[in-house]
Amino acid sequence: MSSTVRVTFEPEGKSVEVDEGSPLHEAARFAEVGLENPCGGLGICGKCKVEYVRGLPEPTQDEMRLLTKHEVSGRTRLSCRQKVQGETVIFVPEGSRSLVQQILCGGEQRDVTLSPGIRKVSVTVPKPALTDQRSDADRLLSVLNLPEARFDFETLRILPTVLRQQDFSVTVVLVDNTIIALEPGDTTTRKYGIAFDIGTTTVVGYLMDLNNGIELSSASALNGQIPYGDDLIARLNHCIEKPNGQRELHRAIVKVVNALLKEACESVGVNPEHVYALTAVGNTCMSHLFLNIDPKPLAYAPYVPAVKHSVQITARQLGLKICPAAPVWVLPNIGSYVGADTVAVLLAHMWEGDGKEETCMAVDIGTNGEVVLHHKGKWLGCSAAAGPAFEGAGILCGMRGAPGAVSYVKVNEHVAYTTVDGKPPRGICGSGLIDAVAQMLDAGLITTTGRIKDRSQLNGVSSAVKERLVEVEGSRPHFVLVPQEESATGEAIFLTQKDIGHLQLAKGSIHAAMETLMNTAGVKPEDISTLYLAGGFGNYLRVESAARIGLFPPIPLDRIRPVGNAAGVGSKLALLSSEERCRAEEIAGRVEHVELALNPDYFNNFTEASLFPEG
Amino acid sequence: MSSTVRVTFEPEGKSVEVDEGSPLHEAARFAEVGLENPCGGLGICGKCKVEYVRGLPEPTQDEMRLLTKHEVSGRTRLSCRQKVQGETVIFVPEGSRSLVQQILCGGEQRDVTLSPGIRKVSVTVPKPALTDQRSDADRLLSVLNLPEARFDFETLRILPTVLRQQDFSVTVVLVDNTIIALEPGDTTTRKYGIAFDIGTTTVVGYLMDLNNGIELSSASALNGQIPYGDDLIARLNHCIEKPNGQRELHRAIVKVVNALLKEACESVGVNPEHVYALTAVGNTCMSHLFLNIDPKPLAYAPYVPAVKHSVQITARQLGLKICPAAPVWVLPNIGSYVGADTVAVLLAHMWEGDGKEETCMAVDIGTNGEVVLHHKGKWLGCSAAAGPAFEGAGILCGMRGAPGAVSYVKVNEHVAYTTVDGKPPRGICGSGLIDAVAQMLDAGLITTTGRIKDRSQLNGVSSAVKERLVEVEGSRPHFVLVPQEESATGEAIFLTQKDIGHLQLAKGSIHAAMETLMNTAGVKPEDISTLYLAGGFGNYLRVESAARIGLFPPIPLDRIRPVGNAAGVGSKLALLSSEERCRAEEIAGRVEHVELALNPDYFNNFTEASLFPEG
Repeated sequence: MSSTVRVTFEPEGKSVEVDEGSPLHEAARFAEVGLENPCGGLGICGKCKVEYVRGLPEPTQDEMRLLTKHEVSGRTRLSCRQKVQGETVIFVPEGSRSLVQQILCGGEQRDVTLSPGIRKVSVTVPKPALTDQRSDADRLLSVLNLPEARFDFETLRILPTVLRQQDFSVTVVLVDNTIIALEPGDTTTRKYGIAFDIGTTTVVGYLMDLNNGIELSSASALNGQIPYGDDLIARLNHCIEKPNGQRELHRAIVKVVNALLKEACESVGVNPEHVYALTAVGNTCMSHLFLNIDPKPLAYAPYVPAVKHSVQITARQLGLKICPAAPVWVLPNIGSYVGADTVAVLLAHMWEGDGKEETCMAVDIGTNGEVVLHHKGKWLGCSAAAGPAFEGAGILCGMRGAPGAVSYVKVNEHVAYTTVDGKPPRGICGSGLIDAVAQMLDAGLITTTGRIKDRSQLNGVSSAVKERLVEVEGSRPHFVLVPQEESATGEAIFLTQKDIGHLQLAKGSIHAAMETLMNTAGVKPEDISTLYLAGGFGNYLRVESAARIGLFPPIPLDRIRPVGNAAGVGSKLALLSSEERCRAEEIAGRVEHVELALNPDYFNNFTEASLFPEG
Repeated sequence: MSSTVRVTFEPEGKSVEVDEGSPLHEAARFAEVGLENPCGGLGICGKCKVEYVRGLPEPTQDEMRLLTKHEVSGRTRLSCRQKVQGETVIFVPEGSRSLVQQILCGGEQRDVTLSPGIRKVSVTVPKPALTDQRSDADRLLSVLNLPEARFDFETLRILPTVLRQQDFSVTVVLVDNTIIALEPGDTTTRKYGIAFDIGTTTVVGYLMDLNNGIELSSASALNGQIPYGDDLIARLNHCIEKPNGQRELHRAIVKVVNALLKEACESVGVNPEHVYALTAVGNTCMSHLFLNIDPKPLAYAPYVPAVKHSVQITARQLGLKICPAAPVWVLPNIGSYVGADTVAVLLAHMWEGDGKEETCMAVDIGTNGEVVLHHKGKWLGCSAAAGPAFEGAGILCGMRGAPGAVSYVKVNEHVAYTTVDGKPPRGICGSGLIDAVAQMLDAGLITTTGRIKDRSQLNGVSSAVKERLVEVEGSRPHFVLVPQEESATGEAIFLTQKDIGHLQLAKGSIHAAMETLMNTAGVKPEDISTLYLAGGFGNYLRVESAARIGLFPPIPLDRIRPVGNAAGVGSKLALLSSEERCRAEEIAGRVEHVELALNPDYFNNFTEASLFPEG
């Protein structure tokens, strides 16, 4: 009989009871403490270091190999190598918590089995003789013991040559029952895949070792379609107006994907020919353009995609510079504006199959906000056009969240701010905008209808702050965040009444979309046990400020969980496991798409939601 | 109770007893009288005209429509429209007997069902609405009631455009469960396929209407690889010696196939985009080169092909200019030198599945002779290198069977000959060579060892013939077939001792191969119920002359059946029916390949077989 013992994780102080002898990383999972775990708990990467505050065990052999002498003789151990023996207190250092890694870790631990569906098998094929004139194909398939296997056709073409290159010793690469590559000699140790998250603005690729699930490198770049238009509507218009527009956008995205996979491979010395699988997630329009499938009907009511299901094609068909017959898996979408990226977010976080009990919600905020709600086995998803305010566009002094963007604002006696990377201020990004407006509300500089007050209307405001309100002829006053002399550009950075109006429309749209789904399902804000904030914006957002401006319905703040690039994590999960790919298909099939354009409730909510809450 | 009646077919006088009321073309089939039947007996093509000598029936409505007034009021009827009513005598005119058509007819009648596996379905897809935002793919599949169908990827790319071209009315082309093309409007009446026979020397394509099985047109040309070498060995050497050789030969054959399909389509006004399937048969090397699969190991012992099974790829993958996603079916081969063309011959004629009782044999004579023997459920196949003598090459005055080639020779008091197309003589082709040597043997001009006698050794030979023996310094005499003054070239056409030697090697090789298979199976010449002679050469060959020179073991002459381009017929059968394609795979799997290079019996037989039989 095993007895239970208590394990506490610091500095949060999260505490769980587990059976004595349980793996430590399982205890962390029960406690919902995210630990890095890139190798899936195999004890080979040394990334899940923790410090024992109480109950320090002897180091294992793996730990002696992977940790420094100083660490081993100190209190450092690897969470995947240790079992819980008696009362234990653990300190989790920052380095073992990298957010994306933490999420990936959670995802992988849920599966444990690495099952990308790509096999490499090294064989020696019996040589032909006058007494054994079987075809090369037959002799290979018989030694593989896979009489039903099929050849990728280009691979069949080179079969005789490759077989004879190293004396009939060959490595076969299989996807399910299809031979997608042949390599002379034994190359089984080199088996890679790459997972992409293709955003309207940025593209990220993660190179993964398919032999152990470790992320080897990543690379990111701006989406090469940006010169054709900043947002989806502009890109769709380009397809509609230019005879060759669709192809241009397709080529632009393929080019950036090729550049990123090259960079990710080169940085760790991997031959791109040894990359045997690629997953991609993106919004529905990006998926269509990546595949060069006509996206034009997405631009017009009734907004239908050409295809909703996942698509599997070969790298060769898209001109991707990896193993030519490698499968490219583009995950399914939910609707025209709720794409595979949302499916990937759900895959990474919310989906636990039909048996899920928790009422929860995920929201990914960009120029569109995608929202999914789960309640009692019912899944609802929708998309709301937020406009570009959250990306700093359409705001007079707005900019992307790049170095020098004002990202944090504090208004009390004075006005304080910080910038991305601490660089001299150049403008204000989305999270800074929300912070600034939240602070201005608290300081009484703005009314709940969004009106910037005149200096004369202000009560209890310091003169330093008052001075920041600058009267403008024929308009409401501006609020100066950064005076001219502090700015990198030599121009003051300020907010206008119009800027605040843009923010109200944007946040009203997201808020109303969430509220509409909640009303549809009969859910109140306090019923939501977790709100997952996906995407870069959700990650940099200060949750308190978001609540202050009423970006979300009043869900308790401690239930809001920023989860970083969850779409990228979902893409990686799909790369590493065929089961996850099936799950993605299941998600896309289960989430009911709610068309807000048809929904009177949405428009009613919107009017109310574009106001600011009382302080 | 139906009584039986006798039907006689003239001018052969073949006679059968059938039930009164049987279809006339069935009676013809029982009597083994080949009748044209391109439409499969549907009464729509009017090609199976016969003349009633006795028992003329009233014309049917179809006949009144399809025949001229003169024909209807005379004795002409269509064999597919008439039933046997009482004692009947039929005359089959030459025009209803075209050899290839006769064979195709037999093949199709065995199946009856036209089942090419290509479907065209015209549908009207429900239009999208805000209340029906299913993807274009889903809405199409649901109206097709084929939720499991898959899209050819390039077809998926254009789905939104095509759907909207004629207001969501569209024709879908399916191969099994894959959508390979989409066409606006209703195009179901236009559904074609093309069957190819790719010989080392000539390539033939047959354009078929897949809606009714009718052959619409055919086109033929020399194999574009000839400039790289006349025979297989030369072509393989080109692959071995030139870095780009394989690709050059591949492109040459693709080019000629594209030219022929264009010609066949243009001649009947068919759009090549409406050709949805292509079959190809050829020897193993041709199949490999057509597919651009490395054929080099075929050149060296132990002579193994890369692939033996049938290969299905898309037209796009080979650059064939038909519907891009159309399946290209390349039939399987039996061994390195017993190819898909032989499989097609068996498909057309010998194969009736496992239950076959007859002991029979097929031989296709060219530079290689492929031989297949069936005896008591055992199938044996082999290939013998005959050299180019049968194609007129390696013979001093030899030429291909083109206009002006001496194709028939008679030696009695004088020497008489005819030429192909009656053109002035330019040389001698394979069948003429065999005729000439047979006649020279009968006339006592050659010994059984092949030695041309001196004039002094001749007995009972006319002086006109004697004069044709021309003494040559330091060699055996020549025999002049065409004197200088009759020749188109101004040079006499004659046979040398060396020519006869070449013929002996060639015919000895074929004879020994047949004998080796017969010995292996324990079969005597008189056990063979039918010997099928496939290919152009077998068709032009005078069987009596072939027997005289001992080209075959002494099989009774009335059991030898020339069957024309049986490989082409097999290719057509495979195009018209997926069942036939399965059968081809079964044949290739069942025929045991006998490697003559290993067989001492073959070499023993060969020595004997290269002699001529006693008269």
